Amino acid sequence: MIVTVTPNPAVDVTYQLPEVRLGATLRPERVTQRAGGKGVNVARVLHALGEPVVALGIAGGTTGAELTGELSVAGIEHRFVPIADACRRTVSLVSTRDGSATIVNESGPRVLEAEWRALCAALSEELERASVLVVSGSLPRAVATDGCAELLRLAETAGVPAILDSSGAALTEGLAGNPRMVKPNEDELAALPGSPSAGELSVRAGCAVVSSLGAEGLLGVDAEGSWRAWPPETVHGNPIGAGDACVAALARGMAGGASLAETLPDAVALSAAAVRAPLAGDVDLAYYRSIRADIEVRMEAECR
Amino acid sequence: MIVTVTPNPAVDVTYQLPEVRLGATLRPERVTQRAGGKGVNVARVLHALGEPVVALGIAGGTTGAELTGELSVAGIEHRFVPIADACRRTVSLVSTRDGSATIVNESGPRVLEAEWRALCAALSEELERASVLVVSGSLPRAVATDGCAELLRLAETAGVPAILDSSGAALTEGLAGNPRMVKPNEDELAALPGSPSAGELSVRAGCAVVSSLGAEGLLGVDAEGSWRAWPPETVHGNPIGAGDACVAALARGMAGGASLAETLPDAVALSAAAVRAPLAGDVDLAYYRSIRADIEVRMEAECR
Repeated sequence: MIVTVTPNPAVDVTYQLPEVRLGATLRPERVTQRAGGKGVNVARVLHALGEPVVALGIAGGTTGAELTGELSVAGIEHRFVPIADACRRTVSLVSTRDGSATIVNESGPRVLEAEWRALCAALSEELERASVLVVSGSLPRAVATDGCAELLRLAETAGVPAILDSSGAALTEGLAGNPRMVKPNEDELAALPGSPSAGELSVRAGCAVVSSLGAEGLLGVDAEGSWRAWPPETVHGNPIGAGDACVAALARGMAGGASLAETLPDAVALSAAAVRAPLAGDVDLAYYRSIRADIEVRMEAECR
Repeated sequence: MIVTVTPNPAVDVTYQLPEVRLGATLRPERVTQRAGGKGVNVARVLHALGEPVVALGIAGGTTGAELTGELSVAGIEHRFVPIADACRRTVSLVSTRDGSATIVNESGPRVLEAEWRALCAALSEELERASVLVVSGSLPRAVATDGCAELLRLAETAGVPAILDSSGAALTEGLAGNPRMVKPNEDELAALPGSPSAGELSVRAGCAVVSSLGAEGLLGVDAEGSWRAWPPETVHGNPIGAGDACVAALARGMAGGASLAETLPDAVALSAAAVRAPLAGDVDLAYYRSIRADIEVRMEAECR
């Protein structure tokens, strides 16, 4: 059982429009609303792959009710701790012409100390049956920046390996929780103190680092060496959620005891399959299966 | 008591942002969510002016609950008929730099025949204590385009004068319900069959026509003649909701038995006060009072 924690989940509203023009009144062709936030997206991809997963998070307000209601309808096992404040919403305006997306990200609710404690307690319980923990996304307001480290330490205590996918202070301070793997993209690496390379971060933090190179595939570095894997063709579509599909593959590989080199091609294929699907958290499974065998992986260096 | 009907109300979500850039991830400075739709905005302005008003509409889904919940908190008397489908949302991205607004308008719920009948029945009851009826905005899906005419005929039967503020087929077919007044803007006039002027529409439909000329003020035409009124200065801000503030003034004038010439300056002042307030449905009452006496009105022709 893979456990995902989304400290700051969202109701994702996606408007698909032929054209997004500033200053205009736009009438969307299609409106989709569902549970989101990076960890929820990871859980949705794992669920689509038939992988046992439980999504943890917080839920408050009508948005919180929409979130958990949609997860129930989708059949995704979840455990969301009730909070007093309302969960955030993200609004995406996606062009049906070129797939470009304009996203409005609300900052999220104010989470009380007791509510955060309740989330930690729920996680401790779920870790008893967990093979891997995934902590993904931002922290809500009023939670200390070492919040991710706190969640990761619970996994360490329980002997469960963990993946951290966050950015900024939540990532920097989260490293103190000893994750087995982190997944910063190039911008997130550059924003860290000292702007380390993936290899430098891997040495400094003592964990595996998988970094997305966008259309150029993935770079993975751990104690064994560094590898690159890339897709067989350029994939067009909506890149939102591709990172979450990547994390889903990495978590599945880790749960199955696969090495980083073995897992990277799967992560590239699943990321590409996410770009092909219009909504974040969705993957084009037929496409994933069709390209999975064609992903190349190459060792770049024998040690990090 | 003025009665407003909003056949297709919305939860209005407004994001105030320093800059709206396409293709970017935007973090709003302020998020406001409240009940909207043109008739709801009219009711909110009348309520702010201390004018007795009841807002009628439909409410379904979590959006419907948010809508009626917010009206209760705001202290605006309302009677919303429950429907099975969920009410729509509108999302506005408003620049805090120049007030420009990009708006996403969802189309609205599917309203069943029995639900529409329930709205008509609720209106019939409210008309017994009504001085003026206002029917504002679009029709939801699955309601016939003569829906506004049907609502207006109930007012005619009850001997209550009515104002219709809609566009397209809902306006064209709504004229068959014999409103006392309609309020198309220039674009809405141009979109009518034959693209009539305000004067031509007034003759053809046998009702008063008040047409917004934007920053140039208002043109009003009825059987007595035609008048123009304009603000003492150019007002900068968010023009969304200015038309609804205008309708609120026209409804109040009609309820008090004032002539069109007497009411037009008030409508201009209240429209300008709406432009000064950042949210649709809000008016800057201090500004309204400060300019009210300075609004000029001039007769343009003695008969229409």
